[in-house]
Amino acid sequence: MDITKIPYKIYLEENEVPTKWYNVRADMKVKPAPLLNPGTGQPLTIEDMNPIFCEELNKQELDNDTRWFDIPEEVQNFYRMFRPSPLVHAEFLEKALDTPAKIFYKFEGNNTSGSHKLNSAVAQAYYAKAQGLKGVTTETGAGQWGTALSMATQFFGIDCKVYMVKCSYEQKPFRREVIRTYGAEIIPSPSMTTEVGKKINAEHPGTTGSLGCAISEAVEVAVKSEGYRYVLGSVLNQVLLHQTIIGLEAQAALKKYNIKPDILIGCTGGGSNLGGFASPFIGEMLRGEANYKIIGAEPASCPSFTRGKYAYDFCDTGMICPLAKMYTVGSQFIPSANHAGGLRFHGMSPILSELYHQGVFEARAYEQTQVFEAAEIFAKAEGILPAPESSHAIRAAIDEALKCKETGEEKVIVFNLSGTGYFDLYAYSQFNDGTMTDVIPSDSVIEEALSKLPKVPGME
Amino acid sequence: MDITKIPYKIYLEENEVPTKWYNVRADMKVKPAPLLNPGTGQPLTIEDMNPIFCEELNKQELDNDTRWFDIPEEVQNFYRMFRPSPLVHAEFLEKALDTPAKIFYKFEGNNTSGSHKLNSAVAQAYYAKAQGLKGVTTETGAGQWGTALSMATQFFGIDCKVYMVKCSYEQKPFRREVIRTYGAEIIPSPSMTTEVGKKINAEHPGTTGSLGCAISEAVEVAVKSEGYRYVLGSVLNQVLLHQTIIGLEAQAALKKYNIKPDILIGCTGGGSNLGGFASPFIGEMLRGEANYKIIGAEPASCPSFTRGKYAYDFCDTGMICPLAKMYTVGSQFIPSANHAGGLRFHGMSPILSELYHQGVFEARAYEQTQVFEAAEIFAKAEGILPAPESSHAIRAAIDEALKCKETGEEKVIVFNLSGTGYFDLYAYSQFNDGTMTDVIPSDSVIEEALSKLPKVPGME
Repeated sequence: MDITKIPYKIYLEENEVPTKWYNVRADMKVKPAPLLNPGTGQPLTIEDMNPIFCEELNKQELDNDTRWFDIPEEVQNFYRMFRPSPLVHAEFLEKALDTPAKIFYKFEGNNTSGSHKLNSAVAQAYYAKAQGLKGVTTETGAGQWGTALSMATQFFGIDCKVYMVKCSYEQKPFRREVIRTYGAEIIPSPSMTTEVGKKINAEHPGTTGSLGCAISEAVEVAVKSEGYRYVLGSVLNQVLLHQTIIGLEAQAALKKYNIKPDILIGCTGGGSNLGGFASPFIGEMLRGEANYKIIGAEPASCPSFTRGKYAYDFCDTGMICPLAKMYTVGSQFIPSANHAGGLRFHGMSPILSELYHQGVFEARAYEQTQVFEAAEIFAKAEGILPAPESSHAIRAAIDEALKCKETGEEKVIVFNLSGTGYFDLYAYSQFNDGTMTDVIPSDSVIEEALSKLPKVPGME
Repeated sequence: MDITKIPYKIYLEENEVPTKWYNVRADMKVKPAPLLNPGTGQPLTIEDMNPIFCEELNKQELDNDTRWFDIPEEVQNFYRMFRPSPLVHAEFLEKALDTPAKIFYKFEGNNTSGSHKLNSAVAQAYYAKAQGLKGVTTETGAGQWGTALSMATQFFGIDCKVYMVKCSYEQKPFRREVIRTYGAEIIPSPSMTTEVGKKINAEHPGTTGSLGCAISEAVEVAVKSEGYRYVLGSVLNQVLLHQTIIGLEAQAALKKYNIKPDILIGCTGGGSNLGGFASPFIGEMLRGEANYKIIGAEPASCPSFTRGKYAYDFCDTGMICPLAKMYTVGSQFIPSANHAGGLRFHGMSPILSELYHQGVFEARAYEQTQVFEAAEIFAKAEGILPAPESSHAIRAAIDEALKCKETGEEKVIVFNLSGTGYFDLYAYSQFNDGTMTDVIPSDSVIEEALSKLPKVPGME
């Protein structure tokens, strides 16, 4: 690579943009473990899944063999609104750190949802429309997924009901308004619109809700309403599949300028971000074509990879969703109120979990004050205010770049800047005021949560 | 032009980006009227200006003859962070409107300041640094200018003090936090840090401030502090000069694909947006090389062009700033609390005022509910949530496109999408709730304000 010939921002031409998604499972010798029906302990079949999820998405979910999936033309058409996203040579950050490392970031935040979530939302809304559905339901915590889905469903002309965790609904009125502007119905959860919501409200008067409860409500409405299905923004194999557009574009941009990465970094909550960004590169590794150091950056307050267990667990706190084999700190673990709402998930993508189990990549946990320190360095150097979630990846990238400063190595670091922090300024305000704290769960808290993992017949 | 060969987003290559700013005054036969010293009624000299403003900027302010100004290398370097901005073919909007018109927009919102303001902020911070100053002071209303300036000053390593109108400071805590994150000092105005602030607080206990007062405080601090100068984000000739980067890039992108615009549209508050976008095209008109229909879109609640008078007036409510000959509804006019904070200015750029007076372009006033209706159509079609200010231009563009639908004409409409609405969701919330209202000033209110225009000896 000749660094002097690389533009600050690399944009692919429209005809260089990938037209297929990549399914990393096709290259995995040991496949991720199947989802299980929590009642029977048996692998979930497409017949189990079709009443809840869209049919075409279920096919993608269960397909461990097809390497490439065509991106439907209608989805490609929508992608043009915000893709290709730039691969940026972070030369201002390099200078601020005074490092010999070469740092690049793929910037997924330049769309109104403010994150990479739109990549899968468009696909899911498209398949729902193609199936002739009337609408979809979902939950949202931090709000990025709900925003992305509302944008996608209105584009394809189908309904969207978003159950938003009540405390987020109240604390993030602006996220709520974007979702309303895009015409979705947004309901604070727990609500009185579902049986499960009524029950929780009766048992816990005044509760401000949880993601687990919002999932339960969204699923109930999908199952009970004619022509509706439930959709989800992370964790699932299908979501990782759609998100590979990030990694594929990054690969194309890197190849265009003959840039060979040494280190690839993404943050991890449910896995859609690291999975989408890294899996095309992991595919090269699995096929023996290349070798990279890949790092997942997670919050120390919810350390699924670094302190969790690889075991079957419920995907939701309410314990009504299928069981997934994944790195988990336990579905009954309640993460402290850190500001990276998108990373506060007890479990992890089954694909990433199996790859991590195989030692394909490593993970690191960061405390939020370290993360915001990195966010501020980045914002000042590169002029982009990053999302708290994405700032975990920035922290890891800065740490690696500072190591290079010590050793004098010119490593090439590429990370995924998955979103912007325009709706997270309350968190920045706490950081600016010096009132932000770190809460790391004690060993006994994690042990306690892990002791409640479900017993799966024949699977332990 | 072959519309099928035009990409959805046109990005210039780095080597196609303009390296000079264009000074439209060089092509004007009748120049804009000079600023006057309000005490003497005499044209302001550079000696009058140097104690308040940066020297190099004063030269630009007064230079009616130099056609091209080199953009300093350091400014070009910073521009790379967010420029070139894309010229987008709004094909989704065309489809939503079912119009034969071809619509393009220059998108200036994809940077953390959320608007085009960064173009001039970088230049002003650079010249302040080059002059060896310690820092700059300014005021901000809606907050875009304050954000942009804080980004620019921290990049060049100089201090920045932002006086933010108290009601905005309190109502827009998130804007405030971005500014703080970039290390600027931000002071709610009126404050107790200046004589004028103390006086206003004593006379009007509990006041939530005004832009006029914030200007007065920022100027006082600049003049009284060693090594500080005052900078301003609109109205001035120098600001329009820096903002021509928008129009020059747009021209280059249009030429690259042989697109010949019929209609050019921008919103107008103080004039930096329309002036920067349109003046390179106006230059072509003044030189007899082309002819365009150019439209300035202003709020009906503060209708400087459409209901104001072309006369000398104070630039600020506090009547301490120089007098400018401009379209004005009177410095004592108090616009109703509409949501396009960036357009709530009683006056107008002297350059644009003279051009409007010469009949070079036309102006239209829009009520804010019409504007938000257009914003929502645009957000849904093109996936970008626009700023309320920019949405005035969208309204005008949609109206022109709908006229084409009636007549069947395939006119080419290009507008400037100057910013995003991520910090304006309270306004969207009012629109979504149906509680947004329009307040149009009565004739007698405007007559009353115009009756208070200053008397300038020998100038009436």
